[in-house]
Amino acid sequence: MITLSSDFGWPYPAAMKGVILGRTDARLVDITHQFPRQDVRASAFWLREVLPFFPPAVHLVVVDPGVGTDRAAVVVRAGEHALVGPDNGVLLPVARRLGGSNGGSPGGLDVFRVGERPSTGREPDPGSDWPPVPASATFHGRDVFAPAAAEVHRRGVGSLDSAPGFERVETFVDIEFPEATVGGDTATGAVLVVDGFGNAITNVPGRVVADRFGTTIRVDGERAPVRETYARVDPGQRLVTVGSHGNVELAVNRGRGDAAFDVEAGSSVELSW
Amino acid sequence: MITLSSDFGWPYPAAMKGVILGRTDARLVDITHQFPRQDVRASAFWLREVLPFFPPAVHLVVVDPGVGTDRAAVVVRAGEHALVGPDNGVLLPVARRLGGSNGGSPGGLDVFRVGERPSTGREPDPGSDWPPVPASATFHGRDVFAPAAAEVHRRGVGSLDSAPGFERVETFVDIEFPEATVGGDTATGAVLVVDGFGNAITNVPGRVVADRFGTTIRVDGERAPVRETYARVDPGQRLVTVGSHGNVELAVNRGRGDAAFDVEAGSSVELSW
Amino acid sequence: MITLSSDFGWPYPAAMKGVILGRTDARLVDITHQFPRQDVRASAFWLREVLPFFPPAVHLVVVDPGVGTDRAAVVVRAGEHALVGPDNGVLLPVARRLGGSNGGSPGGLDVFRVGERPSTGREPDPGSDWPPVPASATFHGRDVFAPAAAEVHRRGVGSLDSAPGFERVETFVDIEFPEATVGGDTATGAVLVVDGFGNAITNVPGRVVADRFGTTIRVDGERAPVRETYARVDPGQRLVTVGSHGNVELAVNRGRGDAAFDVEAGSSVELSW
Repeated sequence: MITLSSDFGWPYPAAMKGVILGRTDARLVDITHQFPRQDVRASAFWLREVLPFFPPAVHLVVVDPGVGTDRAAVVVRAGEHALVGPDNGVLLPVARRLGGSNGGSPGGLDVFRVGERPSTGREPDPGSDWPPVPASATFHGRDVFAPAAAEVHRRGVGSLDSAPGFERVETFVDIEFPEATVGGDTATGAVLVVDGFGNAITNVPGRVVADRFGTTIRVDGERAPVRETYARVDPGQRLVTVGSHGNVELAVNRGRGDAAFDVEAGSSVELSW
Repeated sequence: MITLSSDFGWPYPAAMKGVILGRTDARLVDITHQFPRQDVRASAFWLREVLPFFPPAVHLVVVDPGVGTDRAAVVVRAGEHALVGPDNGVLLPVARRLGGSNGGSPGGLDVFRVGERPSTGREPDPGSDWPPVPASATFHGRDVFAPAAAEVHRRGVGSLDSAPGFERVETFVDIEFPEATVGGDTATGAVLVVDGFGNAITNVPGRVVADRFGTTIRVDGERAPVRETYARVDPGQRLVTVGSHGNVELAVNRGRGDAAFDVEAGSSVELSW
Repeated sequence: MITLSSDFGWPYPAAMKGVILGRTDARLVDITHQFPRQDVRASAFWLREVLPFFPPAVHLVVVDPGVGTDRAAVVVRAGEHALVGPDNGVLLPVARRLGGSNGGSPGGLDVFRVGERPSTGREPDPGSDWPPVPASATFHGRDVFAPAAAEVHRRGVGSLDSAPGFERVETFVDIEFPEATVGGDTATGAVLVVDGFGNAITNVPGRVVADRFGTTIRVDGERAPVRETYARVDPGQRLVTVGSHGNVELAVNRGRGDAAFDVEAGSSVELSW
């Protein structure tokens, strides 16, 4: 199984699928191609939310503002999963979770650099000037990452150590999400991301409010009800809840929490009670 | 085969796919994840339009404004198909059509309540507080409906009567679309839904205008041409036609019928000739 | 393998999938259903960009502003691929590329007209008036093209010459993209299409600027840097580059090239140096 994630929208993901299907008959599963454009951190957050629900797979991820620079292509092995994408940190938060949930130690991930740029396997048309120049300056998703994902799938995640073209490395770009500070009657954290519904997802662990459902707390000084679900307040009303990700979420029933709480990704948030 | 429909947009449908693929190797087919947010009636309409073209399958449907309330999760058995989703009526219009088209009687649907909440099959990471609280207050698609769909697929639709965790029930929430009134020189009905092209789809049966192609009729008192296809009027011009769903549609060739006829979902419409 | 492309958005592609899956167990791959509505030329361009990366397959394409008129349904055989869609030219640019890349001669494509309209294989419900009129006046994707694609897949692309319902024809609608004129210190061409990132993709071959990376040229008289990748200019800055398609592209790093260069699909462009 190979999953595909990107910020490409359309039609570029289809070219990646074609490249993969020319090399392997793996099952393909689209995660999304709607990641916020070139937003490495938000993509890293969402990957960490959804990929852990998959059985062992190769996960192709292309959110790559550095395409065409000398940033490397990497494969991160995490438990029985492999993640393939640019060396910009987008793979690491989910890799730590996948590694942990599959018996590996969170700090024991293996990272491989994709040594040679795999070709697309598509020869230029006879009599055509396509591609007239090395094709992959702007579309590594098709020309580097998709072939690499197919190769990892073909070889199996366990055989990367001896696979030509994959070189184990000790240094790589990482992303870590900030931790919230919880103490006394206050939790201080940040909004990690705003989802498509407008829910502002923080880094404050849900357990902080788990015994306060039905009460109100203060969010940046203003009172808001803590409820188990959106529907426990009237439509249009603010609430503090715990999202499916297990974190505190600032929301509005059938509305946008980011607007109502005046926050965006990166905003600091103080909860007190 | 398991089809997936929701109003989730991205990235949440991927988590449902992961949960299912961890439990079964069923073929997955996305219907859409772009249903109008929390619009149970429009979703019910579109499901009725597209699912009957599928061979027997398990259809997972999550349009669920009542998530987190005590509304039940249900499985509706309709002929050789099974529909899995919230007990809010969204499954019933298509179930009646599927039941009828597969030899069952339209009134003879079987509805089962999903008795125990299936777990996600994903254990919390050791050393992690994820998930810190019962996870499914806000994401039953992943934590209830997807596992239930996988279980129905695994057991087979015929064995639900004896399956633990599925309890046959006689009462459930239903949705029925209003019927148009046709008589004399008038048909009185309503707009059921507006599609993404702006076509206003009514409940007036297409046979009402089937012998009037090439003529004009009155729509709420104003004349409009009746044509077999959009292209039979000039771009930008209004027309009355019969859509692929078999109902009268108020449309504009290469434009939006809802704006041109000043209607929206729920608007009453009177056709006369 | 059957790929699916259309301008339908949702939910109509799902009905096509259902029709196909009722007739064949082919692997289905979505290319996109977000082609610009009824834009045959842009769709033809994008198909030419992505389908050549696929192994031999049946490609179902529905971008069909003439639905309901007497335009024919055609199958274009190109090498080991088959393309199924309306006779409006949308299939031809990619067919020439597929034919060439698979050993056929670019001028040697075979075009078949789909002779009889295949039925949907879905009988009207007993006691229902659905469908009350011949269903396919407005949705040939479901009622004509999808069944035809399934039939081509079932028979195999090599057996179309003797297949009932497929008639070889010598005349069909074609689209050809204009060629750029290159000479002396000037290249004169046109913008073929603007992608979702705002990159304006021209018909000027990339080789024209391939030895000018790091310099500037004039675009319609104004200087712009030529760079191998977007990231080689500051965010928000204009550049001329060569896209993954091998053509000159007018772009802005992390911005929209069409706005910055004041061009749209069809605009003429003059490059000089």
